[in-house]
This record gives sequence, C-alpha cells and structure tokens, in this order.
Amino acid sequence: MMRKTSEKAGFPPGSLVHIGEKKAEKAKITLMEYGPDQVREKRVASISELLPLKEAPGIVWINIDGLHDTGVIEEIGEVFKIHPMILEDILHTRTRPKVEALDDGFFLVFNLLYRKEGGGIFSEQFSIIFGSNFVISFQERENQLFDPLMDRIRNEKSRIRKKGADYLAYALMDTVVDSYFIILEAFEEKMEAMDEELIASLSRQTFQSINDMKRSLITLRRAVAPLREIINTLRENDAGLIDEGNLIFFRDIHDHVLQIQEIIDIYRELASGLHETFLANVNNRTNEIMKTLTMTATIFIPLTFIAGIYGMNFKYMPELEWRYGYLAVWAVIVGVVGIMFYFFKKKNWL
Amino acid sequence: MMRKTSEKAGFPPGSLVHIGEKKAEKAKITLMEYGPDQVREKRVASISELLPLKEAPGIVWINIDGLHDTGVIEEIGEVFKIHPMILEDILHTRTRPKVEALDDGFFLVFNLLYRKEGGGIFSEQFSIIFGSNFVISFQERENQLFDPLMDRIRNEKSRIRKKGADYLAYALMDTVVDSYFIILEAFEEKMEAMDEELIASLSRQTFQSINDMKRSLITLRRAVAPLREIINTLRENDAGLIDEGNLIFFRDIHDHVLQIQEIIDIYRELASGLHETFLANVNNRTNEIMKTLTMTATIFIPLTFIAGIYGMNFKYMPELEWRYGYLAVWAVIVGVVGIMFYFFKKKNWL
Amino acid sequence: MMRKTSEKAGFPPGSLVHIGEKKAEKAKITLMEYGPDQVREKRVASISELLPLKEAPGIVWINIDGLHDTGVIEEIGEVFKIHPMILEDILHTRTRPKVEALDDGFFLVFNLLYRKEGGGIFSEQFSIIFGSNFVISFQERENQLFDPLMDRIRNEKSRIRKKGADYLAYALMDTVVDSYFIILEAFEEKMEAMDEELIASLSRQTFQSINDMKRSLITLRRAVAPLREIINTLRENDAGLIDEGNLIFFRDIHDHVLQIQEIIDIYRELASGLHETFLANVNNRTNEIMKTLTMTATIFIPLTFIAGIYGMNFKYMPELEWRYGYLAVWAVIVGVVGIMFYFFKKKNWL
Amino acid sequence: MMRKTSEKAGFPPGSLVHIGEKKAEKAKITLMEYGPDQVREKRVASISELLPLKEAPGIVWINIDGLHDTGVIEEIGEVFKIHPMILEDILHTRTRPKVEALDDGFFLVFNLLYRKEGGGIFSEQFSIIFGSNFVISFQERENQLFDPLMDRIRNEKSRIRKKGADYLAYALMDTVVDSYFIILEAFEEKMEAMDEELIASLSRQTFQSINDMKRSLITLRRAVAPLREIINTLRENDAGLIDEGNLIFFRDIHDHVLQIQEIIDIYRELASGLHETFLANVNNRTNEIMKTLTMTATIFIPLTFIAGIYGMNFKYMPELEWRYGYLAVWAVIVGVVGIMFYFFKKKNWL
Amino acid sequence: MMRKTSEKAGFPPGSLVHIGEKKAEKAKITLMEYGPDQVREKRVASISELLPLKEAPGIVWINIDGLHDTGVIEEIGEVFKIHPMILEDILHTRTRPKVEALDDGFFLVFNLLYRKEGGGIFSEQFSIIFGSNFVISFQERENQLFDPLMDRIRNEKSRIRKKGADYLAYALMDTVVDSYFIILEAFEEKMEAMDEELIASLSRQTFQSINDMKRSLITLRRAVAPLREIINTLRENDAGLIDEGNLIFFRDIHDHVLQIQEIIDIYRELASGLHETFLANVNNRTNEIMKTLTMTATIFIPLTFIAGIYGMNFKYMPELEWRYGYLAVWAVIVGVVGIMFYFFKKKNWL
Repeated sequence: MMRKTSEKAGFPPGSLVHIGEKKAEKAKITLMEYGPDQVREKRVASISELLPLKEAPGIVWINIDGLHDTGVIEEIGEVFKIHPMILEDILHTRTRPKVEALDDGFFLVFNLLYRKEGGGIFSEQFSIIFGSNFVISFQERENQLFDPLMDRIRNEKSRIRKKGADYLAYALMDTVVDSYFIILEAFEEKMEAMDEELIASLSRQTFQSINDMKRSLITLRRAVAPLREIINTLRENDAGLIDEGNLIFFRDIHDHVLQIQEIIDIYRELASGLHETFLANVNNRTNEIMKTLTMTATIFIPLTFIAGIYGMNFKYMPELEWRYGYLAVWAVIVGVVGIMFYFFKKKNWL
Repeated sequence: MMRKTSEKAGFPPGSLVHIGEKKAEKAKITLMEYGPDQVREKRVASISELLPLKEAPGIVWINIDGLHDTGVIEEIGEVFKIHPMILEDILHTRTRPKVEALDDGFFLVFNLLYRKEGGGIFSEQFSIIFGSNFVISFQERENQLFDPLMDRIRNEKSRIRKKGADYLAYALMDTVVDSYFIILEAFEEKMEAMDEELIASLSRQTFQSINDMKRSLITLRRAVAPLREIINTLRENDAGLIDEGNLIFFRDIHDHVLQIQEIIDIYRELASGLHETFLANVNNRTNEIMKTLTMTATIFIPLTFIAGIYGMNFKYMPELEWRYGYLAVWAVIVGVVGIMFYFFKKKNWL
Repeated sequence: MMRKTSEKAGFPPGSLVHIGEKKAEKAKITLMEYGPDQVREKRVASISELLPLKEAPGIVWINIDGLHDTGVIEEIGEVFKIHPMILEDILHTRTRPKVEALDDGFFLVFNLLYRKEGGGIFSEQFSIIFGSNFVISFQERENQLFDPLMDRIRNEKSRIRKKGADYLAYALMDTVVDSYFIILEAFEEKMEAMDEELIASLSRQTFQSINDMKRSLITLRRAVAPLREIINTLRENDAGLIDEGNLIFFRDIHDHVLQIQEIIDIYRELASGLHETFLANVNNRTNEIMKTLTMTATIFIPLTFIAGIYGMNFKYMPELEWRYGYLAVWAVIVGVVGIMFYFFKKKNWL
Repeated sequence: MMRKTSEKAGFPPGSLVHIGEKKAEKAKITLMEYGPDQVREKRVASISELLPLKEAPGIVWINIDGLHDTGVIEEIGEVFKIHPMILEDILHTRTRPKVEALDDGFFLVFNLLYRKEGGGIFSEQFSIIFGSNFVISFQERENQLFDPLMDRIRNEKSRIRKKGADYLAYALMDTVVDSYFIILEAFEEKMEAMDEELIASLSRQTFQSINDMKRSLITLRRAVAPLREIINTLRENDAGLIDEGNLIFFRDIHDHVLQIQEIIDIYRELASGLHETFLANVNNRTNEIMKTLTMTATIFIPLTFIAGIYGMNFKYMPELEWRYGYLAVWAVIVGVVGIMFYFFKKKNWL
Repeated sequence: MMRKTSEKAGFPPGSLVHIGEKKAEKAKITLMEYGPDQVREKRVASISELLPLKEAPGIVWINIDGLHDTGVIEEIGEVFKIHPMILEDILHTRTRPKVEALDDGFFLVFNLLYRKEGGGIFSEQFSIIFGSNFVISFQERENQLFDPLMDRIRNEKSRIRKKGADYLAYALMDTVVDSYFIILEAFEEKMEAMDEELIASLSRQTFQSINDMKRSLITLRRAVAPLREIINTLRENDAGLIDEGNLIFFRDIHDHVLQIQEIIDIYRELASGLHETFLANVNNRTNEIMKTLTMTATIFIPLTFIAGIYGMNFKYMPELEWRYGYLAVWAVIVGVVGIMFYFFKKKNWL
C-alpha cells in the first residue's frame, strides 16, 4: 500500500528521486495545442521542442506518461520554471492529493484508481500544473482514461474548444472523479454478489473478500477526502485564473465529491453489515450442527443405557425371564423417543 | 441503490442524459395559475403554450412528471433560460439534495422516498426551480403526494392563495418533509412488530429484516441530512425572493428536519439494540440446547458405564452372583441420578 | 415513542390539531397574579376572564392543563395575539425542546419526563410563553410538579415575590431540570440493583432491563440536549426581558444541564458495561456447563470402552479366565480416573 | 457515584444546603498571611477574626476543611460578600469543575480524586475564590495534599513568597493537577499487573477489575475535561488579576491537562485491549476444553461401538469363534486410534 | 509507557529535575558553526566555551546528548538566558510535542521514536531552541539520526550552507518526520507478515502481536498529532524568524504529517481487521472441531445403541436365533451410516 518513501530518507529535500517502479523506457510526451478554430497534436521527443510553445496563441496541453524518467521531468521543470519542491511532489508518487497556488497557476495532485484483477484497487498519481494558457499533466503510466477528452478537443463543435486552460483543468479533474463512480459501481455489483454468496458459502475466501472490500473503500476514501478542500481552494483563489462563468463547473465536481463520500460511507456501513451477516451465518450453522448433535445424543444416550442395563450378567434379573420382556423394552424405547420428540417440538428445536 | 452514473461517463459535462428507467410515454405537464381571486388549471401538451405564462399576473406552478422525456426538459430549459448544468442536475436523478442560487430564483433538489412492498424504501428525485412569481417542479413519475396541496390552492379561502411563489415552494418542501414522518412511523411499527417477533423467531429472515431496517435508515438519513443546510441557505440568501413574514414557515421546516434527524439517530440505536437482542437470543437458545445435552449426557454416561461393568464376562465377578446385586445396581443408579440433580439444582442449571 | 404526526399530514401548516390522546374533559386553567405585597389565585372558567389581566399591575401566571381542548388554546391565542405557528407547536406535542423569540417575549418548549410503572420513562410537552409581566404555561395533563413553586409564590417572604416574570420563567425551567436529576437518581439505583442482579440471574428479563435503561437514557438525552442552546439564546437575546441580575440564575441552569449531560454519558457507558458483563456472565456459565460435560464425558467414555471390551463374547479371551481379571479392570479404571484428574488439575480446569 | 442532589429539589435556588455526608464536628479554618519578608499562620476559631484581614498588607490564604458546617460558610459569605449562588455551588459538592468571573476575582471548582482501598477512585470537591490579595479555599475534609505547598510558603527563599495571590491560586491548581498524575501512575501499575494476571486467571474478579478501571477512567476524565476551558478563561479574563509574567505558569498547567487527557485516552484504549484479551483468553480456554472432549469422544465412541458389536448375543457370529478374533479386534482398535491421531496431527489439533 | 512524573510532584514548578534514566557519564556537547564559505566543528567540554559563539558571524548549531546531566542544561540556560519553565520542559522528558514562541526564537519539543528489539516502539524527547542565527538541540541519548544532515552541512555545495537557522530547524524537523515514515514501513512489513501468520497460527503470541501493533500505533499517533499545530504556529508567528522563501519547506513537512496521520488511521483500521480475522479464524477452527465431533458422535451413538440392543440377555429375543440376524444388523448399520452421510452432504457439512 505504501511504497518505500524511505528510499528518499537520506536525500536533502527537493531531491528529484522517483518513488515507484523503475523502468527503462523513456517517458512519452504528447502535446495538444488548440483554440476555437484549430487543433494541433504532436508526439514530442525532446523537451527543447516545447520551448516555442510558451508563446503559442492557443491552449497548450502537455501530457507526460512515465515518471521514472526523472531527466525529462527535470528538463520540464527548467523550461517552465517549476520550483524543485513541486517537482519532488510530482515524482514522489505517494503525495497526498492537494492543491498549491503557484505564482502564475496551480499545482494539483490526484490519485488515479484502478481495479486489480482479483478484486481490490491500486492507486497511481496524477499531477497537473496549469496556468492562464497551458496545462501540464504527469502520469505514472500511459493509459486510456483521457482518450474521450482528447476526442472532445479534436471535435471542433465541442464546448472545450471555446474555453480556456481552466476549463481543460476542470475537464481533467472531472474525468478523474467520474472514474471513481465507475469503481463505486463495481463495488456495488460486488456487494450484491456477496450478499448472495453469503447465503451459500461460509468459506474463509468470503470473509477475506469482505475485508478486501473494506480496505479498498479506505483507499478510495483516502483519494477522495482531500478533493473538497482542493476545489474550495481553487474556487476561492481565483487570481484571474479561473473564469467566473466556469465556477459552476467546479461546483459541480464539488457536488460529485460530496456524493462519492456519502456513497463510500454507506458502502462502509454495508460492508460492516455483510461482516455481521457472515458472523451470524457462521453462528447459525454452528447452532444447527449443535442441534443435530444434541438431539441424536439426547435421544440415544438414554436408550443405550437401557440396552446396557439388560446386557448385565446378574444371575437374578427377573425381567430377563419374562416372556415379553424384550417387547417391553422396545415399548419403553419407543415411549422415550416419543417424549423426547414432543419435548423438542415444544421447545421449537425441530 | 446507486443507478448507473457511469452511463454518463463518456459525455461532456452539461449533457442532457437522463439517468434512470427509460420509458416511452411522454412527460405529463400540468399547470396551475392562481391569485387571491382566481385559479386556472391546465394540462399542457406543448411547451410553447407555456411562453405567454411568463407575463401572467398570478403565481404560476408548472409540474412535470417524467424525466425520461429529455426533449421536454430541454425545451423548458430554453423557454425559462435555465443553465445547462442545472438541467443536467434535474435529469441526473442521483443528485444529492441541494440548493443553488440562480440569478433570479433558487434551484432545489430533494428526494421523495417511498416504501417498497416487502419493506425497505426507494428514492426518487424531486427538483424545484422557483422565482418571484413561478415554481417549476420536476418529478420522475406521476404521484399523488401533492394532491392535498392542489386542493388547498383550489380552495379560495386557503392561506396559500394570498401568498407568493416562495410560499408555494415552502408548501412543496413541507409536503416532502411531512412524507418522511409517515415513513418514520411505518418504521416504528415495524420495530415494535420486530420486538415481538424476536421473542418467537430466530430465523435468518428476522436478522435480514433488522439489516434492511438499518439500510433504509441510512437512505433516509442521506435524504434528510442536506436539508438543514438547504433551508439555512434559503433563509439567508433572501434577495427579496422570500418574504420576511414567511421566514417563520421555513424555520418550521428546519425544526422538523432537526426532529427527523434525531428520530433517525434514535431508530439507528434501537435497530442496533434489536440486533444485539437477536444475537443474545440466539446465544440463549444455544445455551439452552447445551444445557439439555449436558444434563442428559452427564446423567446417562456414568450410568451406562455402570451397566457396562456388569455386562463384562469375567468368570469371577462376585457381584453377579449376589442375590440382590441387580437391585443394588438400580439403587446405585438412582443414587447417582439424585446426586446429579442436586448438583444441577445447586448450580442453578434447572 | 413517536405519536402519530401523520394525523396532521393532510392539514395546511398552522392548523390547530392536537397530537396526542383525545379526552372529553375541558382544559383546567389556573391563574396566579402576584407582586411583592399581594397574591391572587383563581380557577378560570372562560377565557374572557383573562382579558382584564393584560393591564394587571403584578406578575401574571396562567397555567393551562390539557392540550386536547384546542378551542381554549385558540381563544388564548386570540386574546394574547400568539402567532398560529406557535399555537401549532404548543399543540403538536412532539415538538423538539426549543426557544423562539417573539416580538415581546419568548416561547419555550420543554419535555416533562415521568417514570413508568415497570421501568422506562415517558415524556410530555411543557410550553411557556413569557413577556415582561406575564407567563403562560401549557401542560398536557394536570400534575403536582409545580406545587412547591406555587407554595413559594404564596409565601410573601420568598425571593420570587420580589422578582419579575423572567424569574418566574427561570423557576419553572429550574423545576423541570431538577426533575431530571430525580430521574437520574432512580436510574442510578436501578443500575446498582442490576449490578447485583447480574450476579444471580442471567434471564432474558435482565437483558431486557439493560436495553430499557439504554432506551430511557436516549429519551432523556433527547429532552436535555437542546436545553443548552435554549439557555444561551435566552441569555444573549435579552431585549430588556431578562434582568441583568437574574442572568446568574440562568447560568446556573446551564451548569446543571451540562452536568446532566455528563451523567447521561457516564450512565450510557455504565449501561454498556452492564451489557458486556451480562454477555461475559452468560459466556462464563456456558463455560462452566461445558466443563462439567467435558469432564464427565472425558472420564466415563474411555471407562465405558474398557467395560465394553470385556463384554465381548469372543471364545478366546484369556483375561476373562484370569482369577483377578475383574479386579485388574477396576484397577485400570481407577488409574485412568486418577490420571484424568491429575491432567485436569494441571490444566487448571477444576 | 452521584450524591442525592434531589435532597435539594424542594428548596428555592441559592439555598445553602450541603450535599454530602453530614458530620458533627466544626469546620477547621486555617489562615496563612505572607509576604516576601514575613509569614503568619493561625488556626481560626471564629469568622469574626477574619474581618481585619481584608486590610492586611500581604497575601492571605484562608483554608476551610469541612463543608458540612454550613453556618461557617454562610458567615464567610457575608464577610467576603460572596453571591449566594456561589455559596450554593461550594456546598453542592457535585458541582462540575468550572470557573466564574466575580466582580473582583475568580471562583473555581475542582475535583480532588482519591484512590479507594480496593481499587477505584472517589472524588471530593475543592473550591477556590481568589482576588488581588487573597485566596479562600474550601475542602470537604482535611487532607495532607497541600502540606508541601505550605512548606514552600514557610520557606522564605521560595518563589511563592515573592509572588501574588494569582501565583498562590496557580500553585493550588498545580498541586491538584499533579495529584492526577499520581493516580494515573497507579493505574499504569494496575494495568501492568492485570496484563500478567490475565495470563494466569480468568476469574470473574479479573473481569470486574477491568470494568472498575474503566469506570475510574471515566471519573477521572470527568474531573479533567473542564480544566482546559477553565485555564483558558483565566488566561483571557485577566482584568489585572493575573500578572502577565505568571501566564506561562498557567500555560504549563494547560499543557499538563492536555497530557493527562491524552494519557486517559490511551488508558481507555488499553483497558479495552485488556477486555478483548480477557474475552480472547476465555475463548481460548473453551477451545482447549472442546479439543480435549472432541478427541476423547472421537477416539472412544467408535471403539465402544466395535466392542458393542462383539458383545451382541447372536447365535451365528462367526468372528466370535475365530482363534484370533479377540486379537484382531485389538488390532482394529489400535489401527483406528492410529488413524485418528494422524488425522488430528494433520489438522494441527494436537 | 509513562515515566514517573510523580518523582517531581513535591518540587516547586520550574525545578530542574530530570525525568528518566539516570546515568553517570557527562552530557556530550557538539558544536557546528557554518556559513556559505566555511564550516567549523568542535566537541565542547565546558559551557564557557560557548560564550563567544553568541557573536559568531555564521549559523551556530549546538547539540547536547544526555539530559541526565542537569548541571550542563542549567549552565546553558544561564548562558542563553532561557526561562526556567522551558528548561523544565526540556528535562521533563514526558513533555507533549509542542511549540512555544520565545522573545527572540522558538522552543520546540518532538518525540524521537525507535523500534524495540521484539517489536513495539519506545519514544525519546528531542527539543530545539532556535533564534535568528542559532539552533540548540537536546537529545536524551547520542544517536546517528542526524548524521546525514551533518554530512550535508559539511558539503559546501548543499543548499543548507546558504540558508539561515530557520532552514536548519526545518532540516532537523524533516529528519524527525522522515524517521516516522521508516517506522511506518516497518509496521507495514509486520502487518503483511502477520496476514500470512494468521492463516497458519492461532497462538496467543499472534494475538499479542496484534495488540502490540495497536499500542505502537497509539504511541506514534501521540507523537505525530501535535505536529500540525506546531507547524501552523511556526508559519503564522514568523516575527522575521522564518524566511518567506522557506515557508514552502515547512508546508512540505505539514503535508508529510497529514500523510502520516492518514496512514496511521489506515493501519489502525487494518489492525482491527487483523484482530477480526484472528477471531474469525479461531471461530472457524472451533467449528471444524465441532463438526468432527458431531459427525463422529451422530454416526456412532445410534450404532452403539443397536449393538447394545442385541447385547441384552433376554431369554426371548427371536432375532438372536435368526440365521442371518448378525448380517442383518450389519446391513442396518451400513444403511444408517449411508443415510447419515447423505444427510450431512445435503446439509453441506462435509
């Protein structure tokens, strides 16, 4: 759950050390420049290509996939004059979601959440720096999450083409928050499945699944909790960066975050309910087993005693000589069984 | 519990996509226009009929039943100049209860709660837009909840006829909040029934009922919790929209909401109490079963041993030859049983 | 616990509908008018008798017992010009304790709590309206709670005779809050009794008593919790109504409320402790029963096996022919029992 | 835990009724008057002796031991012009710890906590009134808690001799708060002892001890919780009464109170841990007992069956005639036992 | 967990009494003086050597290892004019982490946490006083925690050489906070190990480990919780002491503290999960044992009864004479076993 932050423990603050999986491949840098009338896309090989962009007339979106390539991050930092502590936060992929006001923009950190194969979720870091006419986004790995957004930019009739960098930043955040809803829906299906599974099975796996669910909800809550504060900061700190007319969009995300938090709380309660149901079912089964044992033993132990009595070898046991002694014993046995059944019935144990 | 918000995940923000059950029938639009002296009711077929209403002298209440008909919603949005994000909230039927101040009015979202056949509750969305002289309400389905309110409008002596659109909005909210009380009463009856059921039955159904009750209370709490903030916002933001003299009515709703929240909290504690009682009863029963087994086994196992002893086939077992050996064994048996009963009695197990 | 608020659901707001038990008898109206030098008491038959009181020189206390008589309440509302929403709160006997500032006075709602015969408590509503020189109090039923207060008014040396209507209002509140202390003491005695009962008895009744205690504490907390806010409002809103020198008395009630809340919290924890003790005792007893069964079974089952062996009818069983075979078997049996006892002793099970 | 506050229920507010144990002896009044250069100590017999003190040049500390002597308290109230409600709080020994600003001083209430013989703690009330040059302290009983403080006053080199009445009040509070630390240490020792006791013993006494510990922590928390607010009030309200340079001392008490609260919280969690450990140990033991029973029964019940088979008296049972039948049965028995042991071993039950 | 604060109980406030282990050796005092161009290190034997440092041009860092040497602390207090209450806090090694603004600097207290050999953590106190050009740090024992920081100071290219005393204070705090991350990682490994241990073992040790983990998390939380407030105080109180440009570093620590608190919360929930898993596993095992017993007993008890029947010695038992009676009994036995197995299979108990 926590990656080795201690790898960084010896270094001075502001050191550009990537926390996470090291890979050989270079970071992938893609560029979109767009305005109401045009859109330009490009795969960038060298950071120096980005330099002329600073004077570009449209909105510039630079996306970097792959934080292990610290050289690239450092160069970008130099080109766009980013404070070393911000770069450190970008690379230190366990940074808590947060916002920081820069001189001429905002720095934002989010968690992208993915579902693991066997259930559970894992988290990657997604950082954005945006100013009046540019957005730089940093992802740990390449992924398809933002493809629909790119398509909207390519579509000349879409609203995003007429809006500024603040709207692009909003659209990125919105995509991230929407992805949490998809995870929540997966959780809901899982829970419904588990509800039924609980009736049939009481295995250790089921119990483990409930625990995994709880842990995933903790991870999700951890990703979502700081978002409200982030959006409030954005809405209040608008030093001209966020257009008045776009505030309604940020408020919309704020509402979604509230809603996600509520759903998480509900799911946590439901998961506790599943847990309790599991324990109650286990208890129930133990009780059923107990009942079977009790009834068998309670019926047969006295009978065995009766049989034992007449298995004794005393010389003088008058009953043994009786003509219908054996039949009488059977009669007693049947009588005892009958009384017991009546007793169990009355006690509501059958 | 959560409808598929992900259906919307691909669309740009502000898209008018209805979240919920799709139906073929058209939305039903009803219109009431009233003042101290007159009332006019009409079933509206086309949105264009609503246009002249904007200049009407009285209070105009437009009610739309059926959100699946996105075309109608869109047209209304155009006629009344409603921001697309507001329309999106109206259609996105999982919006959290909230208030938003518009340029010349308020937008409100509530949950209507209904009891399901087999226990449990489900929730529908109810939105209101109101301005200085109009109220537009949006419901997912047609229902009878507001019929008494309509009757009051039709009655020329009722207070509502002399009041403005703010009072109509209040009356709608009041009706919604009162409907929560009815649900709470149903819960109370259910709980009292369950209290007695718990004594007789320890079935899995009973346990499930308690869990369902808990879930319903969560849903209810979720519908009620945002209402306090909503009413506070309305009372503070009164840009001339809410008449000073009507504030007392909104405060009254506020008090009711507080009361509902308290009752929900109490019911949650009571439901936990039921849960604990259930577990204690299950435990109790297991104990009773255990006691029966223990006493049967504890009494008969030693007796069977005694019988077993004299069932042995040793050549030299002097007791077997005794005249009253058999009687002596019975005496021993009766003695052992007596001692055991005394012991159980002393231990308070009988 | 909750009376049928739904009886009111159809009516417009401000309707004077009594929620609670309907009775045939008329409301009982008593009147006290007093000043430093004189006191006048009267049983009032018709509301019109109250009219001249508005100009009376002393302090006027009108007490109404019986809210089912809505006609009387309505008339009083007309005489004293009380807003219909306030009258509604007086009659709607499930109103949450609260304070409301009126134009020339305060409206207060409290809960009177009574202990039921078989344990548990029930709650009645007590409302006060007080202005600069009058107090009107509304009770659901006649009761003796305020008799000592009346005696103090009748005593010409008592402080209350020299004070204003604010002090009378304080004295009424003080009496209500003091009555909570008496209930708390009853709870304490009950708890101490239960502490001892828990040692002797593990019946379902005991468990039920603990649960009832918890519920009563919830009811009590619900009555007390809003009082702090009420008193703070009174102390801050003093538009000349509350004498500066009397503020210390209201602060005193505030301290008492704080203390009651703390005691309730402590009792809730103690009740949880009783609950845990109950469960632990039940567990303990099950363990004891288990131990008895285990030891009996563990000792006698092997012995019965030994006896069973020598009860077999094989032709060639040399032991059966031995002279001291039978004695040897007894020796083995005694040995086995000895070993078992040693084992149990070592395991600390005896 | 709660003394009978109801004894007071009938009396008007401000009545001087002592709540607590009544005793015959008179209250003990001691007096210390000191300055940088001199100290004067005296046992006071009559309140009138205190009158000239009001003009004394040094700091005056009057200590009253014994609140049952209401006459003395009343006289002091007259001499020092103390409001009757303050006197009531002094005598009503269940007052919550609090501070009240007087015209020319402060009134403070604390709890002195003592450990009972058999574990548990009980609480007494300690009140202080202090002004610019005097401190009056009220204790329920005589005790040695403040003896070291008196010794410091007697020592002419100590800091306290050079300071004002505010420092003396601080020193008294500090002594009270330090006494809580001593109780906490006793708790810690108790807990460590219990940690070991839990391994050896599972008696009801141990369980009771854990519960007593929890209750004592509640009492302690109740005494400590209001102290933070008290000290904050003192630090803010300094109408010249508290010397700027002495504020650091009050801040120091504030830190200690914070620390005590944290330790209480930790101990509460530890006590819960002990509780859980107790239950787990009880469970563990039941499991062990179960295992013994299971293994004995599971081994011998089938064996007894085998023996039973060959104890049957059928005419035609060929095995009975075999030469080595008896030996074969023993072989089967040994085989069954072996298989069972292997099975238990594999299941990790041995 | 708590050292004997009571050792101090008798002393007047401000007494320099060391709380903690007493040792004979003298305190070790090291000195670093540095600026952009030079660095000077020295082991100091006598406090008088420190006097000229007050006029030194660079940044001065004095580190004292060993608080048992109260004489040294007192001398330092005199040289640097530190208030006796501050010195008391330095020596009283159970002081809660805190910050205090001095006339010309800040006083800070932290906890250094170390992992014990057998699991668990213990805490030592680390105090800093820093002003515009000096930092004095106090540790209970010598340790290597700050060696990398010293190396950075020795390196003339490092940022720290160009910064002021506020940056040095930051670097010390950062080192402390980073050390908490290392402890958290150890916890994570321990938890993962325990996750697997839980499957194999249900011993009391495992249970104890979970409890120890919980206690350690409480200790850690106690060390971390006050840090947020400390850093906020530092950031707000910057009376010129903290450079504007260094605020970002303190904000960075603030973010780390938030992150640690979140991780602690998550670990506490995970530890609760482990606890529940442990109990569920214990339950599971008991169930398995029960099942074995039940099935053995339920199968063999009736069979033994059958065998017992035909072991009776009645004269007239026709079955005994049958040619295939013995075979028939075996047939019945096999039949009964078959039915039972079918029943168990159906009940899903196998």
